Amino acid sequence: MEKITSASNPAVKRLRSLSEARSRRAENAFLVEGGVMINEALESGLKPLEALFEEEEALVSRLASLGASVRLCSRAVLEHVCDTVTPQGCCASFRLPENTALDEDAARLIALDDVQDPGNVGTILRTADAAGFQGVLLGLKSADVFSPKVQRAAMGSGFRVHSVRTALMPALKAYQKKGYRIVSSALDGEDLYAFGGFGSGERFVLVIGNEAKGISGDIREMSDVRLKIPMRGRAESLNASVAAGILMYELTKPT
Amino acid sequence: MEKITSASNPAVKRLRSLSEARSRRAENAFLVEGGVMINEALESGLKPLEALFEEEEALVSRLASLGASVRLCSRAVLEHVCDTVTPQGCCASFRLPENTALDEDAARLIALDDVQDPGNVGTILRTADAAGFQGVLLGLKSADVFSPKVQRAAMGSGFRVHSVRTALMPALKAYQKKGYRIVSSALDGEDLYAFGGFGSGERFVLVIGNEAKGISGDIREMSDVRLKIPMRGRAESLNASVAAGILMYELTKPT
Repeated sequence: MEKITSASNPAVKRLRSLSEARSRRAENAFLVEGGVMINEALESGLKPLEALFEEEEALVSRLASLGASVRLCSRAVLEHVCDTVTPQGCCASFRLPENTALDEDAARLIALDDVQDPGNVGTILRTADAAGFQGVLLGLKSADVFSPKVQRAAMGSGFRVHSVRTALMPALKAYQKKGYRIVSSALDGEDLYAFGGFGSGERFVLVIGNEAKGISGDIREMSDVRLKIPMRGRAESLNASVAAGILMYELTKPT
Repeated sequence: MEKITSASNPAVKRLRSLSEARSRRAENAFLVEGGVMINEALESGLKPLEALFEEEEALVSRLASLGASVRLCSRAVLEHVCDTVTPQGCCASFRLPENTALDEDAARLIALDDVQDPGNVGTILRTADAAGFQGVLLGLKSADVFSPKVQRAAMGSGFRVHSVRTALMPALKAYQKKGYRIVSSALDGEDLYAFGGFGSGERFVLVIGNEAKGISGDIREMSDVRLKIPMRGRAESLNASVAAGILMYELTKPT
C-alpha cells in the first residue's frame, strides 16, 4: 500500500477537519485516536469509515473487513491529523451514533448543565459508566462528547454510555412528569450524608452544573432535591467531575 | 514605573525559569499566576518575592508592602512568563514552604504513590482540603505540587494543605508504627461500601496509586486495608482524582 505523505491529501484533510464540531456534524463522523480506543469503538458496535495507519497491523484488516477505507501514512501526516500520537500511530473516523432518546427503562441518568471543560465531561462519562448510570443528557452548551479531548478522558466510556444533546430544561420537565426525581447539587442544599439516597426502584436524574456558575437558576428551582457535599476544610468547592463522582456513588450505594 | 518589554530582563528570566522543578529548587521559589491565586497565597501566609503586573492595581502596593520587588511589564512579557494569562495579567514568585514533617496530631492523611498527571495531583489537593484531610505525602515520582499546572487545578488548596515530598515506603511504615492504618485502593480489595469506614478517633493514611499501574506492590502488601470501589457498569476503572474523591468522602462520612 502506498504511504500518504501529504497533508493536502483529501482523506487527510477530511479526518483532520473532525477536530471541529461543525465538521463532525457535516460529515456525520468523529475521530478516534490510537489502537486501544479504536478497538473500544469497534467493541461498542460503532461503524468505522476511514482510517490512517503508520504501519500495517492486524487492526488494518479488521477495519477493512468492516468496510472502512484504510490508508497508510507518514508519521508527520498522523501528527497533523491527531491531537496526540501513540508509538504505533493510527486513527479512524466512525459514524456518529444517532442522537435518539435514551432507554425508556433507564432508572439513573445524569444531566450536564453547561459543563464546559472537555476533561470534566469525559471524566464524568467514565464515572457514569463505572457507577452504572444508563444515560447522559447534555445541555446545549456542554462540551461535545465527540471531541477528541472528551473521548480521551472518557477512556472508551464515551462509546458505551448513551448520551443525548438536548435543551435541558424541557427534557428535565418531561422526565419529572414521568416520575423521575430531579436532583441538583447546590451550596445551600441538604447535606448529602443526611439525605437517605435512592432505593433501587426509584428513578432520578442527577444534574451537574457549570464549573464556575453551578446549576442555572430555573433548573435549581424545579429540582425535587437539592444536595450539598459538605466542605469540611477550607476549600470552597470541588472540581465538577470529582463532585459528580461523589454524588453518583453516594446516591446509588447499596442500602 | 517603567514597563519591562524585554524577555531578556533578568527578573523576567528568573520568573520564567520557575516553570522548571530544578529552578524552583535552586531559587527556593515558585510562581503563582493571576490575582485570585496571588491573594490565596498571601492569605495562606506565604512570602512574596518578586512580581510582574501589566497595570498598576491595589495588589501591587500590598505585595510591595510585604517586601516583594514589583515591576510593570508588557502583555507579551507576561505571556512569556506565565502558563496562562488572565485579562488583568500578573504573576508573583513566593518562597517555597519548608518540606518539614506533617502535624503530629493529623488524623487523616493522603499519600500519592507516583500520581503523575499534574491535573490529578492538583485536584486531589483541592478535594483533600474540602474533605478535611490534614496533610499529603507525595511519593518522589509524583508530580511536583509547585508546578503551575498543579497549582491551577488545586485552586488555592495547594497553599493550604500541608504536603511533604518523601520516599513513601519508609514514611508509611513509620506512620503504621505510630498506629495509623494504611489504606490502599486495589481492584481485588474489599468492597468500599461493605467496609465500615473509620470513626472520628481513628487515624489513617489513604494511598492513591499511579494512573496506569495503580499502587506499587510493596505498599499494597504492607497495607492494613485494601478497598475497591465497585464497578457497576462496563468501565474498568475510574480517573485517579475521582477515585480519590470518592474514597476520601466515604471514609470520613459521619457514622
